[in-house]
Formats: sequence, structure tokens, C-alpha cells
Amino acid sequence: MTGPVNRRSPAPVAARAFSDEERRALYDVIAHRRDVRNEFLPDPVDEDVLRRILEAAHAAPSVGLSQPWDFILLRDPLRRAQVRAAFARANDEAQAMFPPDKRSAYAALKLEGIEKAPLNICVTCDRSRGGPVVLGRTHQPETDLYSTVCAVQNLWLAARAEGVGVGWVSILDEADLRPILRLPEHVRVVAYLCVGHVRELFDGPELAARGWARARTLDAHVREEGW
Amino acid sequence: MTGPVNRRSPAPVAARAFSDEERRALYDVIAHRRDVRNEFLPDPVDEDVLRRILEAAHAAPSVGLSQPWDFILLRDPLRRAQVRAAFARANDEAQAMFPPDKRSAYAALKLEGIEKAPLNICVTCDRSRGGPVVLGRTHQPETDLYSTVCAVQNLWLAARAEGVGVGWVSILDEADLRPILRLPEHVRVVAYLCVGHVRELFDGPELAARGWARARTLDAHVREEGW
Repeated sequence: MTGPVNRRSPAPVAARAFSDEERRALYDVIAHRRDVRNEFLPDPVDEDVLRRILEAAHAAPSVGLSQPWDFILLRDPLRRAQVRAAFARANDEAQAMFPPDKRSAYAALKLEGIEKAPLNICVTCDRSRGGPVVLGRTHQPETDLYSTVCAVQNLWLAARAEGVGVGWVSILDEADLRPILRLPEHVRVVAYLCVGHVRELFDGPELAARGWARARTLDAHVREEGW
Repeated sequence: MTGPVNRRSPAPVAARAFSDEERRALYDVIAHRRDVRNEFLPDPVDEDVLRRILEAAHAAPSVGLSQPWDFILLRDPLRRAQVRAAFARANDEAQAMFPPDKRSAYAALKLEGIEKAPLNICVTCDRSRGGPVVLGRTHQPETDLYSTVCAVQNLWLAARAEGVGVGWVSILDEADLRPILRLPEHVRVVAYLCVGHVRELFDGPELAARGWARARTLDAHVREEGW
């Protein structure tokens, strides 16, 4: 039988439903995710595990389906030592920015696992991805950076479910990272992540456990109809 | 028995382990998450469900534990009509930015569910949260915005697991939103979200299904040791 080409109009389908147990799994991953600094084990992250984690990141929403992220995998000890040195410079500067009475407490915090973790992942945003006009970026040009952060959060949750810890190191001057990573002009660093298996984690935010900061409850953050 | 106060040093504990089934649940939520524009049902989102979704958002990582996000819940039809009008203005401008041969395809896309969804949530970032020097923001001041995006992604995944769709509307001029939401100077709009129950969803990114854009596979996004 022949007939006219059937150019069917795209249509939604029945949405995948999730059970109470599945919801509980998601909520537990979210609740047990930690920013890891010191608990990394030296074991390499298996390629299959890493692939699943990166696929989860790559399934993130992106403005205009531009998928502006890239994942630079760093294992070379020399390169990671360069990044660690850049951290040390920035961290010395950071310490001096705090009031004198907080500096020794700041200096006592371990804030990165760049060399302890067997894998680092720099998540970048290619600001030219998708061409000069991207659907959804016309009035909020920063949304490509935000898409990239969505990928980071997916990566973080997937890693947690795989028994892999992630620590986001933001005490880095991007200008120091760019030559180490050979980044072209149009590519921005969004997140520099330390990644490795963990057996132990803090049972709440480490900065709270160490008395540096206190977490607030949700109620203070919900508003109705306006600020 | 009495004795000296035991000021125990904080220490990590055994990390929660996740089963294959739990990992699968997480990966399915991530894979089945959609940017929803037209599939919203009118039913109100139950307060318990909304609470769980917002608690998931509030469990996001934040730079220096600053928790810079707030969630403004918008249900008032008049206020949502104002936001819808702001979208329409921006969308007309956006359409004109595309090359002439793409404008009619752009105009045919439905890009928001502001009035169809029973609930809108504006996720904001208070750039003064945590005081003048925030741990981790000293060298990357944009990390408070990124923390807020992590909260958005947690919210999105939790909603998906609850059978609630989310659509991120970025075709809005922030200057139009600020008076509608009565935002003070130091508070930025990060994400304007349409939220409501869904029964059907596209089985892939809607922009791909409609032929607007094509998703790339992960391989093109992974690099080793540098760009």
C-alpha cells in the first residue's frame, strides 16, 4: 500500500509515573549529597560509572536545546598540581578578605580535594554554542551558564547514587585555570569538580558541622505573590 | 557521672549506599524530566507535594552555605496575566532577532505555560545573603547565582518524581518582572517557573520533536586533560 507521506504532528505521550519508593530514592540522594573535600578514596572511578554520571549531566535541560556544556576530565597529577597551586594562591587572597577574627578559622578549613581525588572534572560553558541567536537566551543571556549548572547538579546527584563524592572548588581565579586547560576565549569555566569514591561523608553540610555557618530552614525562603 | 565537656571534633560517618533500583529511579527521573509548556492540568498542586518539592530545592548545595535562594509562589491570576504580558512583549522582540526564514517557525512554538499552569514559582537570588565576604565567592562572585540554579534543578527533578511538570520561562525581561514581584535592588531573578500536574509529556526534548533543534550525544562533550 502506498499513500501520502504521513507527516505526523509531534504529540505528548503518557508520562512515566514514579512510585513512593522511587520518590524516596530521589529524595534520599538529594538529602545525602555532600560537598566533599577530604573523604575521597584513591581508587579510580570505573569508566562505566563515569559514563553514567556524565550521561546524567548531559540529560540536563538547556536553553534552546543548546547543550552548552563540556566536561574536561583531568587525571594527570602534574596538571592537577598546577590547579592546586592556583587554589593555594586564591585561598591565601581569600583568607585576607575575611575580618581578622575569622582568618584562623578559615585557614583551618580544608576546602578542596584536587590532588586527593583521583579525578577532576572541569565543567565549561561554550558561550557561542547554538549560534548568535539562541531561543530563550535573547533576554537572559546568562541562561547558557545556568543550563551548565543544571548539568553540574545532575552530575552531582548521579555521582552520589553511585557512591562517588563530588566537591566543587570555586576558590580559583578563572584566569589561572584558562592556560592550564587551554580554554578558548568563548569558553567559560562554570564548575571545577573533584570526583572520587567515598565510604564516609558528613551527615550534614560540613561548614555547619565545623561551626563556620548555619543552615536555615525552608520557611524563611518561601514568599507569596511577591517579595 | 560528671566530667569535662566533651567537645568532639566533627567527623564523617558511613555514607548512605544506594541500590541498583534506587540508582535506576534517579536516572529515570533525570531522563524523563521535561521542559513543560502546554501539558499542565488545572488541578492545584497539593501543599504537601509542594512542600516536598521546595524542601528538595532547599537541600541544594550553596556557596559558603549561604542558601541565597528564595521561592516566590504566584497563583493570583491578575499577577500571572501581567507576567504573561511581559512574556508576550519579550517574545515579539525575540522573534524579530531570528533570521527571516526562522521567524514563522519560532512564532509557531508555544514557549510558556504561565497562565495554564496553576502555580508559578519565581526563584530568586539574594546577592547580599551571607554578608560582604562569603566563603567560596571571593574569586567567583557568580557562584551565588549558580547555587540558586542547583536549587532549581533539584526542584525540577523532585517535581518530576511527584508527577508535576515544570517549565522554565526565560523569554522575559527582568526589568519587567521586578515591579510585578516587588523585588528589592539586591535580589535577582534566576528562574521563572510554571508548575502544575501533568499526565502526558513529550518523550524527548520538545524542541527536537518539533524540529527546531537537534540534541547531540555525550561523546562530543567529553575532553581529556584540556580543551
